[in-house]
Amino acid sequence: MRALYLGRFNPPHNGHIHAIEYILEQPDIDEIIILIGSGEKAYSIKNPFTGGERLEMLTSLVRKRFDINKTFITAIPDINRNTIWAANVIDLVPAFNVVFSNNPLVQQLFSKLANKEVREIPLVNRTEYSGKEIRNMMIHGGKWKDSVPEEVVKLIHKFEGVNRIQTVNHTDEIKEIEHNKV
Amino acid sequence: MRALYLGRFNPPHNGHIHAIEYILEQPDIDEIIILIGSGEKAYSIKNPFTGGERLEMLTSLVRKRFDINKTFITAIPDINRNTIWAANVIDLVPAFNVVFSNNPLVQQLFSKLANKEVREIPLVNRTEYSGKEIRNMMIHGGKWKDSVPEEVVKLIHKFEGVNRIQTVNHTDEIKEIEHNKV
Amino acid sequence: MRALYLGRFNPPHNGHIHAIEYILEQPDIDEIIILIGSGEKAYSIKNPFTGGERLEMLTSLVRKRFDINKTFITAIPDINRNTIWAANVIDLVPAFNVVFSNNPLVQQLFSKLANKEVREIPLVNRTEYSGKEIRNMMIHGGKWKDSVPEEVVKLIHKFEGVNRIQTVNHTDEIKEIEHNKV
Amino acid sequence: MRALYLGRFNPPHNGHIHAIEYILEQPDIDEIIILIGSGEKAYSIKNPFTGGERLEMLTSLVRKRFDINKTFITAIPDINRNTIWAANVIDLVPAFNVVFSNNPLVQQLFSKLANKEVREIPLVNRTEYSGKEIRNMMIHGGKWKDSVPEEVVKLIHKFEGVNRIQTVNHTDEIKEIEHNKV
Amino acid sequence: MRALYLGRFNPPHNGHIHAIEYILEQPDIDEIIILIGSGEKAYSIKNPFTGGERLEMLTSLVRKRFDINKTFITAIPDINRNTIWAANVIDLVPAFNVVFSNNPLVQQLFSKLANKEVREIPLVNRTEYSGKEIRNMMIHGGKWKDSVPEEVVKLIHKFEGVNRIQTVNHTDEIKEIEHNKV
Amino acid sequence: MRALYLGRFNPPHNGHIHAIEYILEQPDIDEIIILIGSGEKAYSIKNPFTGGERLEMLTSLVRKRFDINKTFITAIPDINRNTIWAANVIDLVPAFNVVFSNNPLVQQLFSKLANKEVREIPLVNRTEYSGKEIRNMMIHGGKWKDSVPEEVVKLIHKFEGVNRIQTVNHTDEIKEIEHNKV
Repeated sequence: MRALYLGRFNPPHNGHIHAIEYILEQPDIDEIIILIGSGEKAYSIKNPFTGGERLEMLTSLVRKRFDINKTFITAIPDINRNTIWAANVIDLVPAFNVVFSNNPLVQQLFSKLANKEVREIPLVNRTEYSGKEIRNMMIHGGKWKDSVPEEVVKLIHKFEGVNRIQTVNHTDEIKEIEHNKV
Repeated sequence: MRALYLGRFNPPHNGHIHAIEYILEQPDIDEIIILIGSGEKAYSIKNPFTGGERLEMLTSLVRKRFDINKTFITAIPDINRNTIWAANVIDLVPAFNVVFSNNPLVQQLFSKLANKEVREIPLVNRTEYSGKEIRNMMIHGGKWKDSVPEEVVKLIHKFEGVNRIQTVNHTDEIKEIEHNKV
Repeated sequence: MRALYLGRFNPPHNGHIHAIEYILEQPDIDEIIILIGSGEKAYSIKNPFTGGERLEMLTSLVRKRFDINKTFITAIPDINRNTIWAANVIDLVPAFNVVFSNNPLVQQLFSKLANKEVREIPLVNRTEYSGKEIRNMMIHGGKWKDSVPEEVVKLIHKFEGVNRIQTVNHTDEIKEIEHNKV
Repeated sequence: MRALYLGRFNPPHNGHIHAIEYILEQPDIDEIIILIGSGEKAYSIKNPFTGGERLEMLTSLVRKRFDINKTFITAIPDINRNTIWAANVIDLVPAFNVVFSNNPLVQQLFSKLANKEVREIPLVNRTEYSGKEIRNMMIHGGKWKDSVPEEVVKLIHKFEGVNRIQTVNHTDEIKEIEHNKV
Repeated sequence: MRALYLGRFNPPHNGHIHAIEYILEQPDIDEIIILIGSGEKAYSIKNPFTGGERLEMLTSLVRKRFDINKTFITAIPDINRNTIWAANVIDLVPAFNVVFSNNPLVQQLFSKLANKEVREIPLVNRTEYSGKEIRNMMIHGGKWKDSVPEEVVKLIHKFEGVNRIQTVNHTDEIKEIEHNKV
Repeated sequence: MRALYLGRFNPPHNGHIHAIEYILEQPDIDEIIILIGSGEKAYSIKNPFTGGERLEMLTSLVRKRFDINKTFITAIPDINRNTIWAANVIDLVPAFNVVFSNNPLVQQLFSKLANKEVREIPLVNRTEYSGKEIRNMMIHGGKWKDSVPEEVVKLIHKFEGVNRIQTVNHTDEIKEIEHNKV
């Protein structure tokens, strides 16, 4: 059976590694599709990396730690319509049997509107492995590298990712100052 | 003369019934167009119901309480451009003579940019009949059924609407927790 | 059971009346949804009438000849993506059980991608009742009124529809002349 | 009074100069808005030049031949909805009193849907001054420079415009060959 | 050399005049492109004026205070994709050599993704000349005219701009009241 | 160095295999990005297969015949704006050094607007290995399997691809008949 696993992967981190490990350990799962959401978004606090950069980071991670012959990695743009969201995913990835997600709305959209089986992923240390927290540490000089695999750290350096997210954050601060002044 | 009455109808409630009654009581009004805005939005706190479900709820309400032979019910998607918004409405509904709305911006867009007559609707108990308040009661177990006609309550049960809005709200809470943690 | 019947209705004609009659005569069909496609297109040879005008023409026809209490009439814009087209229709109309269509692609999209039952409509005089042929007669002065119910003819006069489609056609002729000259 | 004059200006040619002259000679016209349509289209047979290049060519032409203090030049993207097309133009240009156009559909959309006065421009030698013919001469080595003012010819050289349109045409020929082969 | 200067100009104010003066004083700058962003937005607190009105206000200001023969003024709609944002600007304006901007993200998008030289503009009294502050004064009856050149004040009166932004603000207040009630 | 290779792959065929072989044989090329264009189109004569199906067919082909550890495979939707097309591709794929394409317009857009090196691919039997010809053989019962690798043939059977393209073609024929009749 083929599993679908979704995320924004900004950037891919140890929590994602644990989830992929868990999914591939399931006795009935042969292959996994790793699907990058918001693929068209970039250079923002929430999505600092481009869809192409996230594809490269995930591929690097899978090549090193998992079986690339069991894995599909691709990206989709946001569609912003909940009721056709699942049909859009189904259109843009290889056929799959089960969705792994802990998001209640994603679960409902796939099960109710697209008749797909949905399963939960046991969370390993959600506090440590949060994309939002990692991006915050990148902005404020925290130990983000502890939560991100080394092959991804290397690529973030190549992309000048820390400078990029700090630039975006600085831009937002300027706007905030202007906002409070008035 | 034909009147236009706009709303999002998430869900249709007693306040809408009073407004439709008021409009049809006007001596110069023969027919009413009930126009569902944000018709493409659904499965969110603000727009839990699909455009199709809102069309069905309103039709059920009009068939029971008003004269369906004097009524048009249809939906339009959001257009997100104020200056062509009125032209877009005019394109997608039967020709009309007067708009009933209490929203100052809607009034200005129709009168200034589309030369349409605009009239106010006297509010009956705005506190009791607010879509936002009704959705809040659906989420938190309040007495939302007191503000919604029984034929609509029946359809909300058929749509499993309470479970749906609670699922969306739960998803938002998870994101909020993550947000506060960081 | 509720049936879905789709068309562009530019304009509604006797062929559409026969189809609606046929659908409502089916022993297991209680209600019909008449869905106007390409609702956002207008002032062209293929779609001379606005979505709102087609809504008005169809409502007028249904009020006179069918049971408005068994009928929903609404419009949707084109979506231009075959694989999510059926999901989009399902989102924007009340829930339905069976689709009536003679278009092989529509049949496949609904049955294969959305698990819907699809049935054919026996054609009554396709040559006489073709939207394209009727629009051609409107342009070139043919007997289009023979194929269109009188309540619709009346509205087309109100909309100055014949002048409109002739204007569009004249515009295309000017471009054609320019095209051939070069 | 302010006049609106629309075109795609691919490229601006002597026919456009005659039209602008005619409009500015009208006793009741003080100012002219020259509006570039399909501003977002480029690198195609029909629209070889970018919106920015057409803006530069027209500005160069107006600075040399007309009074830039009486002229606005700007571009809009296509909107592909006839019924809101005029409202979109009105939104994106300074307020104007009269539209100069020989296109019957443009005339109808402005007069019927936006209550604007519309006037014709007497054609001077339409055969010689056709954008389509000029682009054809650019592709096939004809005397296109005879129909284009010298300041525009200069800019077309700077843009390498002849090479560009020939590249696009060559691409289309390759596809045509493939098409005929099958 | 040609400079690009971007803003939303809602409305154009004295701070913009100082920036344009500064840019045109640079010894290597011959011409300036003034580019209106969010050109399709209007009738909101952040963008009260239409793209066309802002084009008219800026043209009026440039005609009076600068050399219109050295200036291009045009508008672009938002594109909402940071990584293609610079390519989109380059497409829609005449070719330019250097961008003047104090926004760190704009600087990064132009320098990193489009290889353009970027320069800062020394700020003159940022507190006094903030678009946000001026709009706030228009809403609440402050001395906004002190920060806006007289030819722009005149046009704002013609557009009934103060009434417009107050109407939009009133609409937002109604929604806020509703929001707090629940 | 990393190469970019683009196609629509409807379906992937022996011509594509030869092109990938050629690219990977270049002494300076280490990795290849195979990019599926028109990824959002499907169920049409030109694009019968979904983006997800084409991703699966290409992955199957690469896993069997090439080194998956040197390959990225992903899809992008059409953008329909030539001047930002290259910037969009660059955004959505991993960073690359050289584009392999025989399309003159693609070559110009990448070299002129995005400063990318472009190289030609020597054509091996273009007549035999044309996507258009293969789809035609699928419709009319020709020997399409001779031009398509067996692992792709297997997947086309799984997708019921022959029936699908024949259904689409039949739909077009019905419309054609209607068209000729009038």
